[in-house]
Amino acid sequence: MSAPPPADRLFNFIGADIGNWRVIRVAPVVGETLPAVPCLSMVGGTLSAPPQGWHLRGITSNERYVTRPEKTELVARQEGLGRTGSTHAALIPIRKSAAWWAMTQDERRDVLEAQSQHIRIGLRYLPAIARRLHHCRDLGTSEPFDFLTWFEYSAQDLAAFEELVAALRASPEWNYVEREVDVRMVREV
Amino acid sequence: MSAPPPADRLFNFIGADIGNWRVIRVAPVVGETLPAVPCLSMVGGTLSAPPQGWHLRGITSNERYVTRPEKTELVARQEGLGRTGSTHAALIPIRKSAAWWAMTQDERRDVLEAQSQHIRIGLRYLPAIARRLHHCRDLGTSEPFDFLTWFEYSAQDLAAFEELVAALRASPEWNYVEREVDVRMVREV
Repeated sequence: MSAPPPADRLFNFIGADIGNWRVIRVAPVVGETLPAVPCLSMVGGTLSAPPQGWHLRGITSNERYVTRPEKTELVARQEGLGRTGSTHAALIPIRKSAAWWAMTQDERRDVLEAQSQHIRIGLRYLPAIARRLHHCRDLGTSEPFDFLTWFEYSAQDLAAFEELVAALRASPEWNYVEREVDVRMVREV
Repeated sequence: MSAPPPADRLFNFIGADIGNWRVIRVAPVVGETLPAVPCLSMVGGTLSAPPQGWHLRGITSNERYVTRPEKTELVARQEGLGRTGSTHAALIPIRKSAAWWAMTQDERRDVLEAQSQHIRIGLRYLPAIARRLHHCRDLGTSEPFDFLTWFEYSAQDLAAFEELVAALRASPEWNYVEREVDVRMVREV
């Protein structure tokens, strides 16, 4: 078994006139928003040419905070992206402050889980809310965000998703979020 | 205070016919080696054109394992790169196995420090051996290594440097190293 090459871990999020998700809202949460666009596409790998519209990139990576017992619980309960019933999606790009990145690992874990229950809150909404985290900070290019989180859920789980994001935004970890945009989509059938 | 843009954190290591460090040895430790070259240069930022010779890239990032007490001790004792007396340097590119990356944060920290004393061993050689770690795994391109560590030291600290690398290579953490090359240099005056 070998690690997948980065081409399999790199994802592009393209806001444009066409795309397989129809954007229903682009809302600023903290800091500068993103331009409103009619559609969004998620495309894996390296693009051969710069796309029309806006373009965010992120890479999936090893987990930075979860412990083995948490990972076991996550794996047992989570479901993948692309479920038939997942007609709704959200892309939430986030940039954290210099104060966050200056903390040591034990301090960041303390804020993220002991103080904020980030992992615990996410578990509460499994398997309804499927999620994939993409990292941007170490891509080696100037990226406007540190993380891009992609969520998928059904129409019945809309209220649950609002609860999830509200709980995270009310947590001490969010004191370290200096830019956040909330993009909501429905699948273009 | 804001985080430095990636251009300030990205470094290129170029093995070629000319350069500011003269290469005295390119030795395989585990797996495929790198081609022998007369010289090596370390160049910050994004290159405008692909260089002659071989080219490795890495990015400095937040620390992944050190705790606050360890960080305090490191900061108090370490010295920077570029000291007048640092006439010797080593570049040690490493690739870790899929088994390493599949571990959770607590498991990796356990192997790295509880079992291997990686941080403790490095502290023992401060300030003599200056060090900077560069990450490659999440650059978003296919990189041959996961980490590039750059070391600088004086001629009197040659034996100490051999002790340091021997201690790390004998540790349980090194069971997860699937490729390692050891490049040694002296400064070209």
